[in-house]
Amino acid sequence: MILRDLIERKRDGGRLSSDEWREVAQAAANGSVPDYQLAALLMAIFWRGLDDAETSALTSAMLATGNVLHRPEGAAPWIDKHSTGGVGDKTSLILAPLLASVGVTVPMMSGRGLGHTGGTLDKLESIPGFRTDLSLTRAESQLEAIGCALIGQTTEIAPADRRLYALRDATATVECIQLIAASIMSKKLAEGLTGLVLDVKRGSGAFLPELDRGLALARTMIALGAASGVPVVALVTAMDRPLGDACGNALEVRECLDALRGDGPVDLRTVTDALAVEMLRLARPSVAVADARATLRDAITSGAAFDKFRQIVAAQGGDVRAVDDPTLLPTATDIGDVLADREGVVHALPPRPIGHAIIALGGGRTRTDDVIDPAVGVIFRVRVGDTVRAGQPLATVHAGSPSALTDGRHRLSGIIRLGDGPPPDGVLPWVSHRVTTGGVEEYRAE
Amino acid sequence: MILRDLIERKRDGGRLSSDEWREVAQAAANGSVPDYQLAALLMAIFWRGLDDAETSALTSAMLATGNVLHRPEGAAPWIDKHSTGGVGDKTSLILAPLLASVGVTVPMMSGRGLGHTGGTLDKLESIPGFRTDLSLTRAESQLEAIGCALIGQTTEIAPADRRLYALRDATATVECIQLIAASIMSKKLAEGLTGLVLDVKRGSGAFLPELDRGLALARTMIALGAASGVPVVALVTAMDRPLGDACGNALEVRECLDALRGDGPVDLRTVTDALAVEMLRLARPSVAVADARATLRDAITSGAAFDKFRQIVAAQGGDVRAVDDPTLLPTATDIGDVLADREGVVHALPPRPIGHAIIALGGGRTRTDDVIDPAVGVIFRVRVGDTVRAGQPLATVHAGSPSALTDGRHRLSGIIRLGDGPPPDGVLPWVSHRVTTGGVEEYRAE
Repeated sequence: MILRDLIERKRDGGRLSSDEWREVAQAAANGSVPDYQLAALLMAIFWRGLDDAETSALTSAMLATGNVLHRPEGAAPWIDKHSTGGVGDKTSLILAPLLASVGVTVPMMSGRGLGHTGGTLDKLESIPGFRTDLSLTRAESQLEAIGCALIGQTTEIAPADRRLYALRDATATVECIQLIAASIMSKKLAEGLTGLVLDVKRGSGAFLPELDRGLALARTMIALGAASGVPVVALVTAMDRPLGDACGNALEVRECLDALRGDGPVDLRTVTDALAVEMLRLARPSVAVADARATLRDAITSGAAFDKFRQIVAAQGGDVRAVDDPTLLPTATDIGDVLADREGVVHALPPRPIGHAIIALGGGRTRTDDVIDPAVGVIFRVRVGDTVRAGQPLATVHAGSPSALTDGRHRLSGIIRLGDGPPPDGVLPWVSHRVTTGGVEEYRAE
Repeated sequence: MILRDLIERKRDGGRLSSDEWREVAQAAANGSVPDYQLAALLMAIFWRGLDDAETSALTSAMLATGNVLHRPEGAAPWIDKHSTGGVGDKTSLILAPLLASVGVTVPMMSGRGLGHTGGTLDKLESIPGFRTDLSLTRAESQLEAIGCALIGQTTEIAPADRRLYALRDATATVECIQLIAASIMSKKLAEGLTGLVLDVKRGSGAFLPELDRGLALARTMIALGAASGVPVVALVTAMDRPLGDACGNALEVRECLDALRGDGPVDLRTVTDALAVEMLRLARPSVAVADARATLRDAITSGAAFDKFRQIVAAQGGDVRAVDDPTLLPTATDIGDVLADREGVVHALPPRPIGHAIIALGGGRTRTDDVIDPAVGVIFRVRVGDTVRAGQPLATVHAGSPSALTDGRHRLSGIIRLGDGPPPDGVLPWVSHRVTTGGVEEYRAE
């Protein structure tokens, strides 16, 4: 393979064969081609796109450069959920134990915070001792023992994707539907799944804010799943405002523990329930929606889901006492409210600046080697559309120092938008569309 | 400067400011940004192009990363010629001494063979002892002493261009008009010129085969020259067949020595004369074309041009005896003819496969570290349109071994196309257009 010639062909709008994609992925994984040629190819792909067959070939090729989780013959269904990312987006921590507690195996491989968004691994690691760097062998044992493992992308998984992803981040070639889909699916297919639920965020805080781009991604991933015999269902959910009240790692774990006990913010429960029903129905297609809903509700009220979370924490080295008593989770030293400086209506809680404010508090990264403070973050006390009086608390900032608190309160004051009359942009429905191989339909909770 | 953000802006069709291009060029020169980001930027430029101001800013910025030749106050005009490259394209070796012999200083910085085309440096180095790696200081002294220096692009000149050029070659981003123009002009402006003649090749053997692309390049370079106060005139010449009879380094030097004595193929003289007149008129704008032509003819017939070539060879360490007696130039060990296998008409002598055949003989490079054999090459014995009889010699192959000769004869037999009736594609006029700031005109030799 002469990579220069493949770059030229893609540059001119041509296509690469499956064999050529396999060679590209292998060369990316084993380091036999230089980064600058891969970078030029990525920009040519960004420009010209990939057709369905190419996207599928690239996905399979990246998958084949690494190891995979092996689902035992005759085992229970293996189902995962993937979100395109957001602020306060913490459903994974609830869904994984919830589904595992009703007999669905959840091999969940997650990422760290990226840009303005948080990451499941960072949230989990705010539980003292919790390890996410399990080997695939250990993850397989844990999946067999307790039906769930919450792990990071090890170096064993799709090394070609790891290298290409790092290059995309540095070369402004991230926002390409086919590359996003191939990257996600190369990792998800490595989990040995029998089904995948995709949470496609839309709105200003989503990586792809426009609905049509989100739907295009969903359709591409559904097609990639179908090509590999893995059914994929996507829900389109809102990210024009944070999900739930808590934003920040330990704060979000606390909110998830509430949700696993049947409490917590209603918007978080709405999105989580919708995703849970899809996961359960992928595992058991013959079960009616109402029955699925009842099964999941029982798992919460009986304490089975909460207990499963305790098992996962224990299995992965975490301190179970912090699950039982969340005051043992990391706690910020400097806490203070952001007060409304006028009366009015909350017009916007824009996720991107909120995400950046949390990074500024030390709760996220601007470089991959930044160390984060798990305790810091923000708890929102109001929702978009709420009427507030002057002096009312809008949010509580959890910071690591008095100066960080001052800075955080100042930032949040500038971010939370108050106005008169109803919010001019309205709000997006929390769950708006459902996408399957059959097409796109408006979502209705039955 | 965050290069990622500049890549993103260019990717989305935006423009970079002059300050930003300066930072990009400086970072490329000093190595403070990684190759993969430059590669992604190059592909984004290939996609979106550069506007005139950006092309000019990039040219100036690349120029400013290195040193330049200094033309003394009040010195004679400094004029160079640049060709976009071809097979058998040897006019530099004639033009440089010819113009220097009539009082025009020629600071000529040339390149090596690239792709299917030959390079002036490789041709010169077939003269035993000839050194092209002069420092700028030594080149300045030689220019003052004898009015000509034939040198390579030293590491002192436009280091940003060196790095970007090497990346372009490996990332399929060479054929971009603005990048080609900026690369050439950043080096030419470093020569301290008062005028530049551009030889834009067109036809199947040119890097930009189509006339309109060649004209676009000419116009871009003329505008870049104008922005720096350096008049540029371009001639469009044919590269649908080799120029002259000889292709291969020492063989071409022999043909140039013939031309400097007033002999040699008429097509080579036609192109060389046209370029020489333009160079002389840039040096002395008030001189009429007929007078310029007469001055140049006299320099050949008097032996002044030939003598200037001897001076240059002596000044640059070459063996002058090989100039006086070309049999002392490197000579191939295995020489044999390619015979016509039928009677007919020569329909095509396509330059690209001919260039690749010379590389296969060892007379060119496929990698920059290949060592070339200066003696090998091909002398054509017929022209496109000639009627030949079966068994007539079409070309003479000069090879380095009996097996290479066999292989070379076989290749050339396959390349030289014979047919019936006149050549279906005809031939391009050797000099077809003249381009100045005033526009494009059809070329007519006066």
